[in-house]
Amino acid sequence: MDRNGVTEGELEGRGMNKCVEQVSHLALDIGGSLVKMVYFCGENSGSEHQQGILSSKESCGLSNGNTNCSVLRGKLHFRKFETSKINECLEFMSSKQFHRNGEDCHGASVSEKNIIKATGGGAFKFADLFKEKLGMTLDKVDEMNSLVAGANFLLKAASLEAYTYMDGQKEYVQIDQNDLYPYLLVNIGSGVSMIKVDGDGKFERVSGTSVGGGTFWGLGKLLTKCKSFDELLGLSYSGNNRVIDMLVGDIYGGMDYSKIGLSSTAIASSFGKAVSEDKDLEEYKPEDVARSLLRMISNNIGQIAYLNALRFGLKRIFFGGFFIRGHAYTMDTISVGVNFWSNGEAKAMFLRHEGFLGALGAFMSHRKDGFADLKAHHLVEQVPTKPSRNAGGCLNNSSVLKDVNENISIECTMQLSN
Amino acid sequence: MDRNGVTEGELEGRGMNKCVEQVSHLALDIGGSLVKMVYFCGENSGSEHQQGILSSKESCGLSNGNTNCSVLRGKLHFRKFETSKINECLEFMSSKQFHRNGEDCHGASVSEKNIIKATGGGAFKFADLFKEKLGMTLDKVDEMNSLVAGANFLLKAASLEAYTYMDGQKEYVQIDQNDLYPYLLVNIGSGVSMIKVDGDGKFERVSGTSVGGGTFWGLGKLLTKCKSFDELLGLSYSGNNRVIDMLVGDIYGGMDYSKIGLSSTAIASSFGKAVSEDKDLEEYKPEDVARSLLRMISNNIGQIAYLNALRFGLKRIFFGGFFIRGHAYTMDTISVGVNFWSNGEAKAMFLRHEGFLGALGAFMSHRKDGFADLKAHHLVEQVPTKPSRNAGGCLNNSSVLKDVNENISIECTMQLSN
Repeated sequence: MDRNGVTEGELEGRGMNKCVEQVSHLALDIGGSLVKMVYFCGENSGSEHQQGILSSKESCGLSNGNTNCSVLRGKLHFRKFETSKINECLEFMSSKQFHRNGEDCHGASVSEKNIIKATGGGAFKFADLFKEKLGMTLDKVDEMNSLVAGANFLLKAASLEAYTYMDGQKEYVQIDQNDLYPYLLVNIGSGVSMIKVDGDGKFERVSGTSVGGGTFWGLGKLLTKCKSFDELLGLSYSGNNRVIDMLVGDIYGGMDYSKIGLSSTAIASSFGKAVSEDKDLEEYKPEDVARSLLRMISNNIGQIAYLNALRFGLKRIFFGGFFIRGHAYTMDTISVGVNFWSNGEAKAMFLRHEGFLGALGAFMSHRKDGFADLKAHHLVEQVPTKPSRNAGGCLNNSSVLKDVNENISIECTMQLSN
Repeated sequence: MDRNGVTEGELEGRGMNKCVEQVSHLALDIGGSLVKMVYFCGENSGSEHQQGILSSKESCGLSNGNTNCSVLRGKLHFRKFETSKINECLEFMSSKQFHRNGEDCHGASVSEKNIIKATGGGAFKFADLFKEKLGMTLDKVDEMNSLVAGANFLLKAASLEAYTYMDGQKEYVQIDQNDLYPYLLVNIGSGVSMIKVDGDGKFERVSGTSVGGGTFWGLGKLLTKCKSFDELLGLSYSGNNRVIDMLVGDIYGGMDYSKIGLSSTAIASSFGKAVSEDKDLEEYKPEDVARSLLRMISNNIGQIAYLNALRFGLKRIFFGGFFIRGHAYTMDTISVGVNFWSNGEAKAMFLRHEGFLGALGAFMSHRKDGFADLKAHHLVEQVPTKPSRNAGGCLNNSSVLKDVNENISIECTMQLSN
């Protein structure tokens, strides 16, 4: 729910044009599975619009002595599309008139409007398509650079951004900006990138794994009847991984094997129980399959992340990317994994805008040629409702998961260099 | 083919009783999916039998000044059963009369004959069953201890045991016994254990993963129509993982992304292509699914192993466990993974008796109460034949894979303390 009491979706439906002229500084992160979009929208609407634009331009008193600028208040908006349905993204942009917003609006000139900052592999793959359909040029921004810039921005500028999650408890972490670096950034998209971050623009991609969100969704699609990532994730809520995973207790007959630090309920072999049982796929509940899959992948990512953090002596690991979706069980598994393998020495932390690091980073690259700085004030968040299920056991589209990232926006002030 | 020109299977079929009285010193490793058995058999047969036993007893001149012993020549035999069909193992033991071989044969007394060294979780789980059905007591030997003892024995005593595998080239590695330690032992059973080995009996289980052989077999069973591990492994021979895996090139549109050290053919997301394609499981070829699964799991194990080797500065990683099965593609993937992540600094090595480390280690624990030493002379190996396929695309039972470990035996000399 934004300050006008409407969700992004409602805003679009009820009064699309209200925002049209105010939208500027759009950026895309076109990944293997999802297109993530971030755009800035001035805070006025309806009849107050023009006045709003003017009143939101103030003389600049925000930053480091640069008075040759003005300031805009507004919101950063977040949106996602499936990469396989990239036309929906193009249609959305067309409907918002991103591509022909010719006025000198919010510091973006006509020529700048026709250039969109874009990162992710799709910035290369779909460059011609954007040119052909919208007449827009994708200005490619390095993917790792974008992820790091996005994470650094959020960790420094947004309050209540990072949090820990364990045993159902979410705890916000106050980040000391002078003690932020170094940290490990683990971005879980279709695949997983692990980046050691030492400062603004100072980073190294130290590791990664192909077992990521695309594996969960891809394997999950093949194993269950669910048709989307969010349905599959929702399904895992009610699943029981012990039905399919082989536990230490299954091998040892219920005894603990504490000498090697494993309990009888630890997973010895993911999906290992399917080996000895003479059951076809159809005889397993899809929710149990989804749960085992989620646990296998989350735990694996947590372990590889921890091993990389250990390698470079990093105590803090921030997890981002669209795989997480603020999903309790995913975060819990990752946290437990990091905690278990590090004997409590390393901490898994999560980011509220987890899915939009790359897009935000690409957005930040406007700084060089459009605006001088961006200050985040506070977040406006849609309180999630309890998910409902359809007859097939899958979550309805109206579920919390689908919109957990989209219904967050950031109120911010954009400082423009004139 | 052993020295008498018969395989283990033929020996059993043609003249089971020939070996009955000579079998002694049996050990079991009862894992989550497989029971591995190692037993010693004197080298004589048929009418020469009794003479053979006697002639194979010699005064001891093999070892460190201990003359109060005798020496037996014979072979170590290897055999496996599925844990879910443990009765087949019991029947085999019963047919071999392991449980009532009452003579003082090869140094084992009646009471010793009723005690079997056993490791793995099943040594706990099935203890009552062995007592009830065969009247035998399972003398439990620590699992990690057994794995390490088995690996150390093979690496020190057996020639042509360790080898590297890359680009289809198998190269035996001459192990300098004075420069063996430390090394990382990665045992891939249903789950995976990673053990840092510093010497005889000096080790620490430093890591592991639940994504192992049980995951390959379990997930593979759910995803394909194959009914056994070996069929699934055979299927992967002809599969193409690029059909289902999302490659870097799929995201970037065929361009290299060399800045982060990835080529366009690197896997960005295992099973990630299934996300965007509107295909059901049935529309994928099972061999492609098997190949993607094998690559995902092999690569993941290689990566976690490397990260652990790096952590402790270990240059050599030995991979064992029944997952590998001498399978070219599995070894190649693991080797490439270790090579890639370590920039060529760490080396993956494989063991010919990979599947029997635990059972061999349990066997070695007889040393304390049965024999003084075991010297391996050389291996007798059945040359694998090219696998044949049935109509469903699965390998026939007569395939190379099924017997790759079973048809290897070790000629050895057992030194008995009298």
